[in-house]
Amino acid sequence: MTMRIPILKLKDYLLVSIQWELDDQTALQFQEDLLTKIHETSARGVVIDITSIDFIDSFIAKVLGDVIGMSRLMGAKVVITGIQPAVAITLIELGIQLDDVMTALDLEKGLEKLQQELGD
Amino acid sequence: MTMRIPILKLKDYLLVSIQWELDDQTALQFQEDLLTKIHETSARGVVIDITSIDFIDSFIAKVLGDVIGMSRLMGAKVVITGIQPAVAITLIELGIQLDDVMTALDLEKGLEKLQQELGD
Repeated sequence: MTMRIPILKLKDYLLVSIQWELDDQTALQFQEDLLTKIHETSARGVVIDITSIDFIDSFIAKVLGDVIGMSRLMGAKVVITGIQPAVAITLIELGIQLDDVMTALDLEKGLEKLQQELGD
Repeated sequence: MTMRIPILKLKDYLLVSIQWELDDQTALQFQEDLLTKIHETSARGVVIDITSIDFIDSFIAKVLGDVIGMSRLMGAKVVITGIQPAVAITLIELGIQLDDVMTALDLEKGLEKLQQELGD
C-alpha cells in the first residue's frame, strides 16, 4: 500500500509536513499529489517541512529536487523548512539543484518567508 | 503497516488534515500521536480538517469524539472543519458528544475561530 502525504491548503499556500522516512513509491505519489494540488488550488507558495527527517537517500533527494523545480514551473514558490545537517550534506553531495530554494527554520518561519516574498 | 497522520505545528496550534478514510489502527495511532504532540508542544488549539472524508463508520466516529474530549482535558480547544452531510448524520445518529465542539468550513476559517476564541 502506498502511503500518501496529506497536503494542507491555507489561504494561497500549501503546507506539507513529512514526518517519516519516505519510501520510493510514497515519494513519487507525493510528487504527483503536490503538483495536482497546486494546479487545483492555484497555490502561490508551498512550504515543505522536513524537520523530522534526519536522513535521505539519493532517490528521495532527487525527487525532492525535482518537485521543487516542477512546482516552480507551475508558478508556486517553495520553501523547505527544518533541513537537518545530514540531509543538507546529502543534498549538496548529490549536487541536487537547490540554489535558489528558500529555506527556513520551521513551518511558521517558512510561511512568513513566503508572505514576504509574495508581498502579502 | 500502520499509516500515520502528520500533525503540523503552527504557532500555538496543531493542524491536521485527514485526507483518506482511516482504518481502525491508523485512527488509534492518530489519537495517541495527537495527544503526545499536544503535550510536547503545549498547543492551545487543534484544527482537524475532514473535508475529504465523506463517510465514517461508528468506530472512527467514536475515536474522533474521544480525541476531542481528551484534547480538551489536556487544555487544547478543538475545531473540526469540513464536516460533510453524511459524516454529520453519522455523528448525530451515533450520539457522539460534539455538543460544544467548534466547527468551521475549512482550515483557514477554523484557525480564525481558534484565534478569536483564544483571544490571539
